[in-house]
Amino acid sequence: MSKNKKIIVIGGSAAGPKAAAKARRLDERADITLVQKGKDLSMASCGYPYYVGGFFDDRNMLLCTPTGVVRDPVYYMNAKNIRARTNTEALAIDRAAKAVRVRDLASGQEETLPYDRLILATGALPNIPPVPGGDLKGITTLQGMEDADFLRRVRDEKTIKKAVVIGGGLIGIETCEALQLAGIEITVIELLPQLLTFLDWELAELVEAHVRSKGVNVITGNGLAAFLGQDGKLTGVKLSNGTELPCELAVLAVGVKPNSRMAREAGLALGPKGGILVNEFMQTSDPDIYAAGDCIEIPHRITGRSNHAPYGDLANLEGRVAGENAVLGNVVSFPGTIQTGICKIFDFKAGTTGLNERSAREAGRDVDTVINASLDKPGFMNGKLLVSKLVVDRANGRILGAQVVGPGDVSRQVAEWAMAVLGKLGVEDVVNADLPYAPPFSLAIDHFIATAHLMQNKLKGRLKGISAMEVKRKVEAGEPLFLLDVRGPDEFEAMRLGIGERLIPLGALRKRLAELPQDKNAEIVCFCKISLRGYEAALVLEANGWKNVKVMEGGIAAWPFPRER
Amino acid sequence: MSKNKKIIVIGGSAAGPKAAAKARRLDERADITLVQKGKDLSMASCGYPYYVGGFFDDRNMLLCTPTGVVRDPVYYMNAKNIRARTNTEALAIDRAAKAVRVRDLASGQEETLPYDRLILATGALPNIPPVPGGDLKGITTLQGMEDADFLRRVRDEKTIKKAVVIGGGLIGIETCEALQLAGIEITVIELLPQLLTFLDWELAELVEAHVRSKGVNVITGNGLAAFLGQDGKLTGVKLSNGTELPCELAVLAVGVKPNSRMAREAGLALGPKGGILVNEFMQTSDPDIYAAGDCIEIPHRITGRSNHAPYGDLANLEGRVAGENAVLGNVVSFPGTIQTGICKIFDFKAGTTGLNERSAREAGRDVDTVINASLDKPGFMNGKLLVSKLVVDRANGRILGAQVVGPGDVSRQVAEWAMAVLGKLGVEDVVNADLPYAPPFSLAIDHFIATAHLMQNKLKGRLKGISAMEVKRKVEAGEPLFLLDVRGPDEFEAMRLGIGERLIPLGALRKRLAELPQDKNAEIVCFCKISLRGYEAALVLEANGWKNVKVMEGGIAAWPFPRER
Repeated sequence: MSKNKKIIVIGGSAAGPKAAAKARRLDERADITLVQKGKDLSMASCGYPYYVGGFFDDRNMLLCTPTGVVRDPVYYMNAKNIRARTNTEALAIDRAAKAVRVRDLASGQEETLPYDRLILATGALPNIPPVPGGDLKGITTLQGMEDADFLRRVRDEKTIKKAVVIGGGLIGIETCEALQLAGIEITVIELLPQLLTFLDWELAELVEAHVRSKGVNVITGNGLAAFLGQDGKLTGVKLSNGTELPCELAVLAVGVKPNSRMAREAGLALGPKGGILVNEFMQTSDPDIYAAGDCIEIPHRITGRSNHAPYGDLANLEGRVAGENAVLGNVVSFPGTIQTGICKIFDFKAGTTGLNERSAREAGRDVDTVINASLDKPGFMNGKLLVSKLVVDRANGRILGAQVVGPGDVSRQVAEWAMAVLGKLGVEDVVNADLPYAPPFSLAIDHFIATAHLMQNKLKGRLKGISAMEVKRKVEAGEPLFLLDVRGPDEFEAMRLGIGERLIPLGALRKRLAELPQDKNAEIVCFCKISLRGYEAALVLEANGWKNVKVMEGGIAAWPFPRER
Repeated sequence: MSKNKKIIVIGGSAAGPKAAAKARRLDERADITLVQKGKDLSMASCGYPYYVGGFFDDRNMLLCTPTGVVRDPVYYMNAKNIRARTNTEALAIDRAAKAVRVRDLASGQEETLPYDRLILATGALPNIPPVPGGDLKGITTLQGMEDADFLRRVRDEKTIKKAVVIGGGLIGIETCEALQLAGIEITVIELLPQLLTFLDWELAELVEAHVRSKGVNVITGNGLAAFLGQDGKLTGVKLSNGTELPCELAVLAVGVKPNSRMAREAGLALGPKGGILVNEFMQTSDPDIYAAGDCIEIPHRITGRSNHAPYGDLANLEGRVAGENAVLGNVVSFPGTIQTGICKIFDFKAGTTGLNERSAREAGRDVDTVINASLDKPGFMNGKLLVSKLVVDRANGRILGAQVVGPGDVSRQVAEWAMAVLGKLGVEDVVNADLPYAPPFSLAIDHFIATAHLMQNKLKGRLKGISAMEVKRKVEAGEPLFLLDVRGPDEFEAMRLGIGERLIPLGALRKRLAELPQDKNAEIVCFCKISLRGYEAALVLEANGWKNVKVMEGGIAAWPFPRER
C-alpha cells in the first residue's frame, strides 16, 4: 500500500469540514487534520441571528448533527477519523516544504504540520469602519460564535434598551429582526440609499416599509462617523450628517472580506476582490493547495466576472469539490455562482437570483424589466402578496435574474427563477411551465409564470409598462399625465395613492370613455391594485384610439412611496 | 373596419373563461360569448375540498376575483365585454354552418349561435363505476359546484357519521381529508395496491401511513362491488372481496374522462384517451375550432405520448393559448405536460413531476433511481422531513422525474425538479445549483441538491443502493444478509426496524470491524435514520475489504413497512 496521503484543512466552519468529510469518504486511508482557530466546529453560522432572536434556545443546536450529536473533536475522530485540532491557529504556509506552521492557543506551543494536499477554508473577516471609538465596550459584529453568544446574553439579560445596527445588508437586516424580537429599540443605518442592495431600489423600499412597520427606525443614505462613549462604554453613535443616536449596543454589519492573509503571504495568487484565486477545480495557483468557501473568489455564471460570494450553501458545495479533487486529482469542477440569496425579515421575505437591473446594466446588458404583484395562493387559502421584478436580455428574452419580496412564498419563487437561470432559459421557455399547483401551494397560474406572461406581453409590445418611480417623477415635474385608477369605489376609499389620479372602475370604463382626455396622444397611465385590471383598461383605451397609454407596473401593491391612505 | 369576429367559447370553468378573456384582450371588437351549462362561472374547482373541509366558509370565495367581485354574467359583461350565458347547454356543433345549437335550461328554448371561431372547453366527467345501487341517495362525486355545496351541507349539518371515499387518487385523498376534518369517520377504498398512483409504491406507502395515523381507514387492492341501501338511501358499500362497510355517504373519486361527446358527434378527431385531439396551437381537426382544458389530450414532453392531463393550471395555460390563436391565427403554441402535480393531505404533502420509476419503465427507459430523506430546514428552525425519489436516464444522467413526500416544504422541491426537467438538465447540471439558502427556508445543501449528490454518487459507483423493498424481500426469503444499523444506542432504543439488524454506531465501527462477517463477500446492508451515516459506514467497510456492501436508501425514514418500534 502506498503511503497515506496527508491532508490538512484550515478552517472549521462550513467549507473546511465539508472538504475534510468528502476527502475521508473518498480515501479511508488518508491522514486528515482539520485546523480550527476557535473552540467550536461546524458552526451553523447562518443560524446565529435566529439563536439571538430566540427562535431556539439550545446553543448546541448550532453545532450538532441532525440527530443531536455535537460535532466536536471526539465526534470527528470517531465518526470520520478526522483529527480536528480546535483552539489552534494556522500561522503560515511553507509551500516549498509543504508544511503549515500552527500554534496551540492554549499552550502557546508552535508546531509544523506537513501536508501532501492543503485545503484553505479560512473564511471571511468582517469589515470594520475606521472611525473613532471602535474600542468601546458594546460594539460587536455577528460573525463568530462568540458574537452570537454575546448577543444572546444581551437578549437574555434584558438590560440594553437601545441598539444601532450599522449596515442594512443581509446580516444587518437579520440582526435587526433578532434584536427587535429581544425587545430592544433598534435603528438600522445604511450608507447607501436603500437596504438590501441585492435588490433594486423599488423592491428594497417595500422591504424598508415593512421593517419600519415593525417599529424599527431606518436611516439610509447616511454613514457612521464615530462611536461615542463614556468610561469605556458605548453611549451612542454619530452619523456623517452629525446626528447622534444614543445606544448601548452597536452591531457592525457592513459586509465581509475574504480572509486571505496567509494565502497572500505564502505567495498564492489573489483575485480582484482580494479573495484567493482558484480555478474551476477549487485549486489555487499552487497545485497542491485547494481553497473553498468565503476566502475565495468564484466566477459569476452570467457575467463571467470574479465575485466574492460568501454564502453558506456555496461554501459547502465548494468544500465538497475541493475535498474530492484534493484526494482524487482534478475530477470535479465548480461552475460558479448566480448570486442567489434569500432572507427573512419579520413577516417578509426577500430573495434574488442572477442579475438585478442595476447589476445587469453595470455589466453592459441591454435589459427589459417587469414588475408583477399578486398573491402566492388563492385568497380562500389565505394567500399572501408577492412582488417580483424580472430582468431579461432584451436581445433574446433570456432570463438574467429575478427578485422577489413580500409576505408570500418567496422561497419557491426564487428557486424557480434560479433554476431558470441555471437552465439558460428564456421567457418563452417558461410561459407554459408545468409547475406543482394545488390551492394550498400556489395560484392556478403560479406567480412565476404570471410574471413571465407579463414580460412576454411587454416584449410583444402589448403591455407598455411604466415604473412607479417614473410616474412619481413625472407627477413631481408637473408633466401632463392622466392617471387612471380602475379599481372599485370601495377599494379607492380604503387605499389610494393620492397623486391626482382619476377613478373610473374597469367595469364602467367602456361607457365612460368621454371622461378621458380628448387628445388621443395624451399620456395616460392605468393602474389598479396589482395592475392586472390596469392592463385590461390600457387595452380598452388603445382599442379606442388612445396612442400613449401605459400601465403602472405592480400597481398600488408595488408603489414604493408613501400613499395618501 | 372589418366585420367583428364572432367567438363562442363553450365551458365556463377554467380554460373557457381564460380563453375568452385572452381573446378579448387581443381583440376589443370581437363578439365573444361564453356558454356555460351550470349557473356558476369561473369556479375554483381545485378549491372545493378546502371549502368542504372548512378552510374557509364563504362560498363566493370560490367564484370571485382577488378583490372579491363574483365573476357572474354582469361582471363578465362590464369588466370584459363578454356575454356569459349561464344555465345554457351547448347541444351540438354544426361545422358546415359554423354554428352551435344551445338550449336555455330555464326556458327550454333552443337557439343557434353562429361563430367564426369556436373554443371548446367542455371539461371532464367523473368516471362512474357500473355497479348496482348507484342511484341511492347519499352518493356523490366532487366534480361540480353542486357537489361541493352538497358536501359542505354534510359538513355543516353534522348528521352523517360514516363515509366511504371510493378512489385513492388526488381528489379522493383531498376529499378524505375534507370529510375527516368535518368529523366524519372515513374509509378510503382503492382498487390498486396503493394510494396516489402518481407516486411509486414506496412513497405512496409513506403517505398511506400518515393518512392512517389521522384515524382514516384505508383499504387498497380492493374494488367497489355494489352500493347497499334501504328505502332509497345509501346504507353501505360492498367491496369485491365481500366486505361490507356501513356508511351514509359515498364519494366517488375514481378519476375523470374528457367530456368530448359533442366534439365526437361533430366529427372532430379524438385521441387515444378519448380526449379532443389538438395540435400545438390548441387547434382541433377543424381549423376554426380550438379546444383547451380537461376535454383535450396533450403530449407528454418526455415520452411524446398523448396524455389526458386534467389539471387546473394547465387548463388556464391552454386556454390562454387557444384564446390568442382563435383571434390572431396560430401564433403561440403549448408544449405539453410533464405531469407535475401536488396535493396536501393532513400534515403531509405529496408531489411529482416528470416520470416516476413505473412510468419511466413503461415508457421503455433504462433508469436509475435514488431515494433521499432529510429535513427541509435545519433542526433549529423546526425543519421537517422530506423523502424524495429521483429518476434519471441511466444512459446520460438526464433527469426524468422526481417525487417528493413528507411534512416538509414539498412545493419548492417539486418546483425545482419541474424546472430541471423543463430545462432538460442532467444530474451533473444540478449538483452545484445556486439556490436560495437561509435557515428559515432550506438546509445549507438544499434537499434537492443533496438528492442529486446521492444520484451522482450512485452513478459513479460509490453509493451502492438497495431499496427497502428489496431488503424486505431478502429478509423474508431467508437470504443471508448482514443488516447493519449504524445509529446511536438511544436512537435504536426509540425506534427500530426489528428485522434482525445489528447495531454498531458509526463512531465505533472502525474499532469493531471484527463483529462484521469474516467472509469479505458476505452481503452487508448499512443504514441509519436517513442513510447518510449508513453511506459513510459502507465506505468504511469497502475500504476494509468487504466487497458486497449496500446502503438501504432513505434509511428508516423512508421504510415503507411497519417497524418493530
